[in-house]
Amino acid sequence: MTAATPNPSAAPLTYDQAGVNYDLIDPLKVAAQRAAAETGTHLASHGFSEVLASRGESAYVVDVGPMYLASIVECLGTKTLVADEMALLTGKSYYDGIAQDTIAMAVNDLITVGATPLVVQAYWAAGGSDWFGDKVRANALVAGWKKACQVSNVAWGGGETPALAGIVADGRVDLAASCTGIISPKTRLSVGDKLGAGDAIVFLAASGIHANGLSLARKLAERLPQGYLTDIGNGQTYGEALLAPTTLYSPVTEALAREGIFPHYCANVTGHGWRKLLRHPKQLTYRITAVPPKTAILAFMQKECGLDDHEAYGTLNMGAGFALYVAADQAPRVVEIAQAQGIDAMVAGRVEDGPKQVVIEPLGVTYGAEELQLR
Amino acid sequence: MTAATPNPSAAPLTYDQAGVNYDLIDPLKVAAQRAAAETGTHLASHGFSEVLASRGESAYVVDVGPMYLASIVECLGTKTLVADEMALLTGKSYYDGIAQDTIAMAVNDLITVGATPLVVQAYWAAGGSDWFGDKVRANALVAGWKKACQVSNVAWGGGETPALAGIVADGRVDLAASCTGIISPKTRLSVGDKLGAGDAIVFLAASGIHANGLSLARKLAERLPQGYLTDIGNGQTYGEALLAPTTLYSPVTEALAREGIFPHYCANVTGHGWRKLLRHPKQLTYRITAVPPKTAILAFMQKECGLDDHEAYGTLNMGAGFALYVAADQAPRVVEIAQAQGIDAMVAGRVEDGPKQVVIEPLGVTYGAEELQLR
Repeated sequence: MTAATPNPSAAPLTYDQAGVNYDLIDPLKVAAQRAAAETGTHLASHGFSEVLASRGESAYVVDVGPMYLASIVECLGTKTLVADEMALLTGKSYYDGIAQDTIAMAVNDLITVGATPLVVQAYWAAGGSDWFGDKVRANALVAGWKKACQVSNVAWGGGETPALAGIVADGRVDLAASCTGIISPKTRLSVGDKLGAGDAIVFLAASGIHANGLSLARKLAERLPQGYLTDIGNGQTYGEALLAPTTLYSPVTEALAREGIFPHYCANVTGHGWRKLLRHPKQLTYRITAVPPKTAILAFMQKECGLDDHEAYGTLNMGAGFALYVAADQAPRVVEIAQAQGIDAMVAGRVEDGPKQVVIEPLGVTYGAEELQLR
Repeated sequence: MTAATPNPSAAPLTYDQAGVNYDLIDPLKVAAQRAAAETGTHLASHGFSEVLASRGESAYVVDVGPMYLASIVECLGTKTLVADEMALLTGKSYYDGIAQDTIAMAVNDLITVGATPLVVQAYWAAGGSDWFGDKVRANALVAGWKKACQVSNVAWGGGETPALAGIVADGRVDLAASCTGIISPKTRLSVGDKLGAGDAIVFLAASGIHANGLSLARKLAERLPQGYLTDIGNGQTYGEALLAPTTLYSPVTEALAREGIFPHYCANVTGHGWRKLLRHPKQLTYRITAVPPKTAILAFMQKECGLDDHEAYGTLNMGAGFALYVAADQAPRVVEIAQAQGIDAMVAGRVEDGPKQVVIEPLGVTYGAEELQLR
């Protein structure tokens, strides 16, 4: 296998072409968000209240008196389709990594609000009982789930393993995880109140594509002459590189808390790539002055899909899996603490007064507020 | 449409024939439970601990100091397939009821451990973006979800609405809910410590089939001459009767708590029907001396499937949706409190010393411990 050569005659392959039509999903999403917002008042009958600022954030937060409660449910997405294809091609199961990806989707979102993840529940819905009969795959899934719980220091509470013939496609599995945690002491709450000009932006390194952009990645596989077995230039196959499990970032946020460092805000860089840096509603400019190394898989994808930087950094994590917005004087220590947890980190930029935008100076790329509509 | 006449020549239709092969799922389930059990110790690093007795119960409980935290994720199952079929036949959307069913799966399990449900997260994974484009159905789902949150007094925290083409079947949706709650005061914890001889068993009425036994119900539809449009004898069609939304029982458990009545144990009567009464590991006999009225839909199913009482009561809820095990002297008041919440209730039996079994005296049916293997 050799590195694929770019095909300059091919049209660029963008995320919009890769399958998901948000124009159809968004009206329901908006209706659901509005309806959900009206249910927060139910908590009053129990003597509690929601943290209003957590609406629209990655996890929902409730004030239960001595502490805050945070919860979330997250879907893995379509990464299993790559794992299934690679299993056919190589005879290996990649479901240990897939398990970690699924937990990471939930845990990495939960920690953005300052929560300590405590419990993960497994949601493994298969296309039929047969799915569970593949022992190698089943064992890989169980072992990977357990290990990811260990790394993120959560208890695996239980879960669901339904066989849903007629709903989940035959031979497939729909994987998701719910995660519950607490924010204690309550001063750890991070929903952006303290976010402001002067804050430093610290990036934590991504291990690869993580679990976002997989529709695009699968589309690209169809175009590559050797598909998932294409060498991406470093001796790794495209499929294997895609399947690098998502980094779990909770060891970093917990280590920061132990040293009394509470981020002013966090963004889990998933769908929408670096546009996610704009997540908080405040009108602020996020100026990125240094970009992390692209992981090999993302450099390969950008080249092969023919994506310019605006499209690539606005879609994929491009090496930055998680962003911490911290007091500037704490930034160097944040980097050290992350590295002590085995996760590469860098001070990538700063928050400034100005219009709501992300400016990636080294690349000449800017994303305006209109380019991220999440609320 | 007329009531279907029983077909005595047809072989009985049992749950075992209706699709799910637990022999394939169970080894994975056991492996997952073992692995999960080993992760409880991770909580110690946060200064917390699991409530060991909640392992194997319907919800997982963690001691976070001033209160207990309970969490769960639950799948609706295949009831949407009935709703989809009925939408084709009648032009109506039944997804408002389906939403309630999904929330009930989570909320009714969470309350078994004594928890007050606080937050529900929605998991709506569709077979493609198109699924969300049906506005009538989407609006019914949102409205039903909101209403069920109101009835169960929980906040709708948010959720996931992924489009999973290639994983979820085209035109279908995989619905699940996660639920988080607290047990406060901690004396409300109900994992069976106080369960014992002399306790009364109070049944709360079911609205219909709820969301368990749908594989069997769908199989039966294939056998009925008019399928889902068959009159079940009370003027209702089979499909409509199946789609009666699951009763939400948290208003009852919350009302009990307000009066200082804390059940010694609870069983959500879902899969395995009344065998679920055996759920707790203690060696006790559960003697049922009065059975509730079968709902019309379950009477119809029992007759049409040709199920004897042992099979029917061991598979379906048969009118008893939830069981409360309470101090005998509190039982009459428990019934009154449930009825004040609009949910019919009855003192159905008592707990006795003796071998682990359920004895349904009026029917001459007994289930031994070997007939329920959940742990």
